[in-house]
Amino acid sequence: MISKLPSHIVIREVGLRDGLQSLQTIMPTDAKCAWIRDAHAAGLREIEVGSFVPPRLLPQMADTVEVVAYAKTLPGLQVTALVPNVKGALRAFEAGVDHIVLPISASLKHSLANVRRTPLEMMDELRAILDERRNAGATTRVEAGIGTAFGCGLQGEVAPDEVIGLMETALEAGADCVSLADTIGYADPARVRSLFERAIGLAGARFWCGHFHDTRGLALANVLAALECGVARFDASLAGIGGCPFAPGASGNVATEDLAYMLASMGLPTGIDIEALLRLRGVVASQLPGESLHGVIARAGLPRIAPFQAASH
Amino acid sequence: MISKLPSHIVIREVGLRDGLQSLQTIMPTDAKCAWIRDAHAAGLREIEVGSFVPPRLLPQMADTVEVVAYAKTLPGLQVTALVPNVKGALRAFEAGVDHIVLPISASLKHSLANVRRTPLEMMDELRAILDERRNAGATTRVEAGIGTAFGCGLQGEVAPDEVIGLMETALEAGADCVSLADTIGYADPARVRSLFERAIGLAGARFWCGHFHDTRGLALANVLAALECGVARFDASLAGIGGCPFAPGASGNVATEDLAYMLASMGLPTGIDIEALLRLRGVVASQLPGESLHGVIARAGLPRIAPFQAASH
Repeated sequence: MISKLPSHIVIREVGLRDGLQSLQTIMPTDAKCAWIRDAHAAGLREIEVGSFVPPRLLPQMADTVEVVAYAKTLPGLQVTALVPNVKGALRAFEAGVDHIVLPISASLKHSLANVRRTPLEMMDELRAILDERRNAGATTRVEAGIGTAFGCGLQGEVAPDEVIGLMETALEAGADCVSLADTIGYADPARVRSLFERAIGLAGARFWCGHFHDTRGLALANVLAALECGVARFDASLAGIGGCPFAPGASGNVATEDLAYMLASMGLPTGIDIEALLRLRGVVASQLPGESLHGVIARAGLPRIAPFQAASH
Repeated sequence: MISKLPSHIVIREVGLRDGLQSLQTIMPTDAKCAWIRDAHAAGLREIEVGSFVPPRLLPQMADTVEVVAYAKTLPGLQVTALVPNVKGALRAFEAGVDHIVLPISASLKHSLANVRRTPLEMMDELRAILDERRNAGATTRVEAGIGTAFGCGLQGEVAPDEVIGLMETALEAGADCVSLADTIGYADPARVRSLFERAIGLAGARFWCGHFHDTRGLALANVLAALECGVARFDASLAGIGGCPFAPGASGNVATEDLAYMLASMGLPTGIDIEALLRLRGVVASQLPGESLHGVIARAGLPRIAPFQAASH
């Protein structure tokens, strides 16, 4: 098994988007930029810095243009943003975002609640976004993120065939890459393996990312199962903040620092300095008083063994 | 991979021993018996009900004889107890315990702190226990539990060769079965796979149990890695209580209800009624005011999908 694991893993930080959008606190632009600066300094090279949604719906994301502008000054950083539709994508192209994620919920009920469109209407949106990218001559990478891929708190079951069917449609429409998201923490390692194997069989090198929430404590076990399928990129959120405003009972994403710790323990390189990440977590936590933070390694500390040993003295 | 997974998994409840021994609260005998009764009713068939240690060291375990006597009235229950030495084993034989666990720390420093003996002195203890069992004509199964198998907060590194060497010695001495314990939560899935593969290669059917603490959030991922090696029995503690009084920074065992949830999600039968277990958790939690409880599924609730769907309405 171990020889099958990818030789380098990318953690994409989504705390500034998936995390902050679900909190009451509205983090000031300066604080977001400092977070991005320090995350980049700690070794993160892909950061979802915000989303292009109407500010009246998500005031936490109102400054995404400014945050993108700052993030683009950092060398080697893939600046990512979520867009719910063509209008958001146009703003993202104009802002010079490197990579956009269009969320496509496999659950009809969640899709309607989250973006007021059916999954198939979102496919039309995807095609329109790809057209507009061509018209604009933009080079932004377009990812179709298939969400609620393991079920949905509003609807219950989501059939794997529907998830794979949507992924196939997105690939045929011309999405550069596709991802699977367990938006509300319903996945388990057996179903992760089964669905991710099908997804990778379909998408090949265009499979991009695994996105797991730790609502029921299985996020790291699910990451392990996906790793064993060859997935080499995972979303994570500093201090495990996050959730989904339209997914009842969802709690945070897998915590960036816990995921970085697991991968480092396993000898899988991510390029991340975990101690720098833990210091950043402390700063961000101090800016989010009263919010629910998650994550275990910040409380327990790094173990007194390699590769962490030097850190413990 | 999935076809390799064991077809039935046993969860051994250790909350009454590994859990309660680490708490300030001394649970009354009646409450312990009610816990055992309800755990048995929820489908658990192996319970470590206490330990035979001097009451002045662990007053929480002073009533183990009475608790064993009650547990033995429950049909089909394998009544298990920890013993630190021959003296404890003699008391366990006399009480009619079905199965005893002798902890053998691979970390010299932890072994001295925990049982005031070196690992090799514990091997002498194991041989003496097996002699006394013969003399007593007892049928109690004797397990050598190799602890701090992935490192130790006191000593740091523990060499896998030392762990495997101790296991080999225990098997040669005649232990009925052997186990591996990550006493303080240092394990990761890659090292779990590597060490458990060696252990199972050595012990074969005499390999008994995996014991993981969730100190750094990896317990369920580690269980998954061990499952994939063919391990079919895991220790767990209701509400994740536990730790080790002589292992600084250790926190609870993997929570019984979270482990049962993961296995049920994966379609792996354990015979456990998770809803009954969650009700029992509520009762036990109410008896442990002020103590740190863990576990995620009790907070998040079961998902609205099979095999939990019927339960959510």
